[in-house]
Amino acid sequence: MSKLTDVPKRILIGRALRSDRLGETLLPKRIALPVFASDPLSSVAYAPGEVLLVLSIAGVSAYHFSPWIAVAVVVLMFTVVASYRQNVHAYPSGGGDYEVANTNLGPKAGLTVASALLVDYVLTVAVSISSGIENLGSAIPFVVEHKVFCAIAVILLLTLMNLRGVKESGTLFAIPTYVFVAGVFTMIAWGAFRALVLDDTMRAPTAEYVIKPEHQGLAGFALLFLLLRAFSSGCAALTGVEAISNGVPAFRKPKSRNAATTLALMGLLAVTMFCGIIGLAMATKVHMAENPAADLFRDGVPVGPDYVQHPVISQVAEAVFGEGSFLFIVLAAATALVLFLAANTAYNGFPLLGSILAQDRYLPRQLHTRGDRLAFSNGIVLLAGAAMLLVWIYGADSTRLIQLYIVGVFVSFTLSQIGMVRHWNRHLSTERDPAKRRHMVRSRAINAFGAFFTGLVLVVVLVTKFSHGAWVALLGMCIFYATMTAIRKHYDRVAEEIAAPEGPPGDDIVRPSRVHSVVLISKIHRPTLRALAYAKLLRSDTLEALSVNVDPAETKALREEWERRGIDVPLKVLDSPYREITRPVIEYVKSLRNESPRDAVSVIIPEYVVGHWYEHLLHNQSALRLKGRLLFTPGVMVTSVPYQLQSSEAAKRRARRRQEWNAPGSVRRGPAQERAKESSQST
Amino acid sequence: MSKLTDVPKRILIGRALRSDRLGETLLPKRIALPVFASDPLSSVAYAPGEVLLVLSIAGVSAYHFSPWIAVAVVVLMFTVVASYRQNVHAYPSGGGDYEVANTNLGPKAGLTVASALLVDYVLTVAVSISSGIENLGSAIPFVVEHKVFCAIAVILLLTLMNLRGVKESGTLFAIPTYVFVAGVFTMIAWGAFRALVLDDTMRAPTAEYVIKPEHQGLAGFALLFLLLRAFSSGCAALTGVEAISNGVPAFRKPKSRNAATTLALMGLLAVTMFCGIIGLAMATKVHMAENPAADLFRDGVPVGPDYVQHPVISQVAEAVFGEGSFLFIVLAAATALVLFLAANTAYNGFPLLGSILAQDRYLPRQLHTRGDRLAFSNGIVLLAGAAMLLVWIYGADSTRLIQLYIVGVFVSFTLSQIGMVRHWNRHLSTERDPAKRRHMVRSRAINAFGAFFTGLVLVVVLVTKFSHGAWVALLGMCIFYATMTAIRKHYDRVAEEIAAPEGPPGDDIVRPSRVHSVVLISKIHRPTLRALAYAKLLRSDTLEALSVNVDPAETKALREEWERRGIDVPLKVLDSPYREITRPVIEYVKSLRNESPRDAVSVIIPEYVVGHWYEHLLHNQSALRLKGRLLFTPGVMVTSVPYQLQSSEAAKRRARRRQEWNAPGSVRRGPAQERAKESSQST
Repeated sequence: MSKLTDVPKRILIGRALRSDRLGETLLPKRIALPVFASDPLSSVAYAPGEVLLVLSIAGVSAYHFSPWIAVAVVVLMFTVVASYRQNVHAYPSGGGDYEVANTNLGPKAGLTVASALLVDYVLTVAVSISSGIENLGSAIPFVVEHKVFCAIAVILLLTLMNLRGVKESGTLFAIPTYVFVAGVFTMIAWGAFRALVLDDTMRAPTAEYVIKPEHQGLAGFALLFLLLRAFSSGCAALTGVEAISNGVPAFRKPKSRNAATTLALMGLLAVTMFCGIIGLAMATKVHMAENPAADLFRDGVPVGPDYVQHPVISQVAEAVFGEGSFLFIVLAAATALVLFLAANTAYNGFPLLGSILAQDRYLPRQLHTRGDRLAFSNGIVLLAGAAMLLVWIYGADSTRLIQLYIVGVFVSFTLSQIGMVRHWNRHLSTERDPAKRRHMVRSRAINAFGAFFTGLVLVVVLVTKFSHGAWVALLGMCIFYATMTAIRKHYDRVAEEIAAPEGPPGDDIVRPSRVHSVVLISKIHRPTLRALAYAKLLRSDTLEALSVNVDPAETKALREEWERRGIDVPLKVLDSPYREITRPVIEYVKSLRNESPRDAVSVIIPEYVVGHWYEHLLHNQSALRLKGRLLFTPGVMVTSVPYQLQSSEAAKRRARRRQEWNAPGSVRRGPAQERAKESSQST
Repeated sequence: MSKLTDVPKRILIGRALRSDRLGETLLPKRIALPVFASDPLSSVAYAPGEVLLVLSIAGVSAYHFSPWIAVAVVVLMFTVVASYRQNVHAYPSGGGDYEVANTNLGPKAGLTVASALLVDYVLTVAVSISSGIENLGSAIPFVVEHKVFCAIAVILLLTLMNLRGVKESGTLFAIPTYVFVAGVFTMIAWGAFRALVLDDTMRAPTAEYVIKPEHQGLAGFALLFLLLRAFSSGCAALTGVEAISNGVPAFRKPKSRNAATTLALMGLLAVTMFCGIIGLAMATKVHMAENPAADLFRDGVPVGPDYVQHPVISQVAEAVFGEGSFLFIVLAAATALVLFLAANTAYNGFPLLGSILAQDRYLPRQLHTRGDRLAFSNGIVLLAGAAMLLVWIYGADSTRLIQLYIVGVFVSFTLSQIGMVRHWNRHLSTERDPAKRRHMVRSRAINAFGAFFTGLVLVVVLVTKFSHGAWVALLGMCIFYATMTAIRKHYDRVAEEIAAPEGPPGDDIVRPSRVHSVVLISKIHRPTLRALAYAKLLRSDTLEALSVNVDPAETKALREEWERRGIDVPLKVLDSPYREITRPVIEYVKSLRNESPRDAVSVIIPEYVVGHWYEHLLHNQSALRLKGRLLFTPGVMVTSVPYQLQSSEAAKRRARRRQEWNAPGSVRRGPAQERAKESSQST
């Protein structure tokens, strides 16, 4: 049936890749870093700006708090990194936050984390793309002028790439990420050099602007609240830190050690860039307002609605490298690119998490099988759809989207850290070796602090951002949570219903004693003859051919040919005053069942196999409907005897291609063989 | 699979009716007339106006030609009626134009007629609805102000009604039709009385208007051409005349005689009303222009674009009964209603013709079975879609739509009449009885004249209207023709491919010697146990259970339980490094085939039967895909052993309802039992 949808897909998505070709190689640290860290690293492109934006509410004077906020973010970053280094050591199999929470805190917590992560992935796409567009826009004005359009275009592009099953190569990630990092560091270094050594004054394009504070001279609690809000905006820099902990299996041995090192390296890079950019922003007097149109003044007049407020990183770059200079352009491009890559990571994470959830029967089971194109496609399309919706609703404005962003992240941080504490407790209760114990206690302490701190931040984020949009994220989480619980309930109910009682097979089921086989015949041709031949092979107790009389003439002809060919199977013809096919057959089958309730009826249907969906419309329709109905009739089994028409070759090829498809995110999950070996143990 | 589409349908279309309840009663003439004649009778609502419109091009002076054109139309009408009276006698089974042309002139001609009729049905809807809206608009201005919107609304309404399978009752048609006829006759009589006896002057609202002729003082060929164009517009009055000849079986006995009488009666009514309206239009000085905005002047100034030109019938009614008078309103309403009923006839004709064409394999075979909801629905939706498109493109302007209309009608008229001539020739060649022969010769003469005349008109219509839109109709016909030929070709090619050679069954097919049965097992539960039990009943030569190892733990558990329960069927487990299900199974089956190519493999799949489409998404997905792939593997038969979950009850009920549905146009096809009896001759 998927044939129908297949044609357009083919056109868009093109020929797919062989899945065995995927990542036979494990990732060295230098590649693993960009592959897993593009998300957290790229977030320094917007996080610093968000801090300034919030502070600007209390007027530019509040900017001098920014270093302190930066410090807070740094401390948080180190905490989180330290905590996840423990995860990495504890779960070398690459147990993500979901598994950690699930195994240590039970399914409810696990499901909460899962919902949080799913929402998070959606927002990663929305935020990263929007911010990427804004950065690109600082170099190419057209892009910001058609922000939403461009953002959605990029999302569509990524979606197609991932549906296409593009083989995600380490280098693809490495180059832009390293260019970005290098660029930012050059900027910081060169900026520092100019400021301190050459001592020449660098001015951001908005340096001369004046900010009209929304609340003049905030103080006391109000100020504190504002600072907390600024801080939680800054926390955007931590998004995606957990990525590595999911990807441990993809690392070279010693996996855990390498992963931990990479994690640390990533944290170090991130905080340095974060602080560097904040510092330069101060030095170059960047002025950003939460709603520039009204609160930002150029020569005494408000800049007005069509003023485009460029991201802090590009303003700084402009100040340091000079407007439109080569390096400025390069950095802008690299920033945009790395942000798009960050979005792409969600395309890998989302379906992957989906398949894990499916394993636990929280999502349709078919999402479970890996490399199953349809499964992943569904996930990808869902993700893209949700992201595009958000981008469209929020006008691709990263600032507004970020309000939704950080909740999910910290929900999963907190729960996974609490889970880790439990984890260590459990192990400590059994572990006797003092050295190991000491180590565990240390880890537990770290995780405990992590849990406490991230939990605190979560509260802060909720309090400061709830009305600004965090509630949307929470709503999203609830929806995911509810849906998944419902699905799980359904599966459990069914499992209960079909559970087999103990004792020899099927004792409880009325074990049929005999089979009465019926071959459906419309005309006499190869398909029906084959069906008859096969039916005979299955030595059922009785066998008869069944035809429905919709056209007396045809029926007559059929009977005659039947005689002439001397087919040694009795032919029964049902009358059908309404020229129906389904009803008479169903009723006949039912009557058979009534005559001898302990018998099973096996209905054998000859079927054409065709190559194209439009051919499908021309064949088997009544057979299909009949099968559909028969399935509802108890004590019946339905056998299709396919007859492959020449045209079916085409479809066969298509099906093969669809199967030889490469699931996204293979690299970050490590080579498939490996994992298979690890777990294979059957004949 | 249709479950998915079923939910919205249900909401819109609601519960359907039982099909056995349909027309047990045959139609008496007084009911048959309105049922079959609503289309031709209603066309007098627009035909006269069209004549005047065209004449107006040569200025109001040309109006005095209108009586002559009326005469021509009357003659034509009598010819056509006379000819069809022959059809009715010759084909009491209700052979429509398609069958007449098909049997007597061969498939190509038949297909041409069919295409013409299909286009015609679409236009019947478009024109009748548009004109109905215009007539309604003469009483309720709002309606004309939102012409297109209202027209499409009405079409949607009719579509839903017909999808719903509303039982079309004779009385439903009778009342408005008779009200309409009565109204028009009263108008004519009262008008004549006022004019001739009371001798008071009646003035149409447009009486004082002045028409600026587009071509001053036309003469010679140009004038002739114009008159011909006016005539072919007038021919719109003949649309739908053939309806009765399709419906003979629905008449009371003597069917043919009654049908013929009804036909004559219908013709008589139509022409009288046609002439009456033209006459009154002259008497009341109705002024209509083809494009009033420019060519119609009120007190010397053009009426301008927002002037609404009311249909001639309502202008006359206004003049005769007085503006806004009760009778005026009633007539307007009745006119609109009868026009909508005329449109509704197309909803019955289109799918009916479709099912006949399907019988001849020009359309997907499943359209063939009568009372098959899906089949009819497709036809209805297609019809409605096309009609709405036309209405939208042509702004629901009946005048512009009529340009397309008449081509199809006369194509089928002409061909069916030629067919009749052939028919008589064939019979004359065998018939010996002189009395009968004389009768046949007479009939042949009538049909011959009919063929000649309608053919002539067809040429005239084509010549005079081609550039005005007739080409669109022709294009539509070509598209239908091409599609249907292609479908027929496909079926023939397949039929050839699967044709069974002579000799004992399946000699040519490699007759499999043994069957190797494989039962797919995921877990041990009732469905799988049942599948195993059934599989054992079919004493195939070898039987084994097959499971795919996607999760080693689960597999291990399965093996253990298998042992514990002591199931006496060998369990084979396939490895699946990629956690796939389809591929390993397919490959295993292939390997079996390779080992012993002369054996058949029977794959037995336990299946859940669920009640709701969303449950469907949660089950059987991999089974479905596997089945899809298996069908492409030669030498395989696929057996589903259904296990009905409790929820499946819901679906069972739905399916039953869907089946107990009442096909549109049942009345006009006569009671089903009857026809069945007529043709039933099997056990």
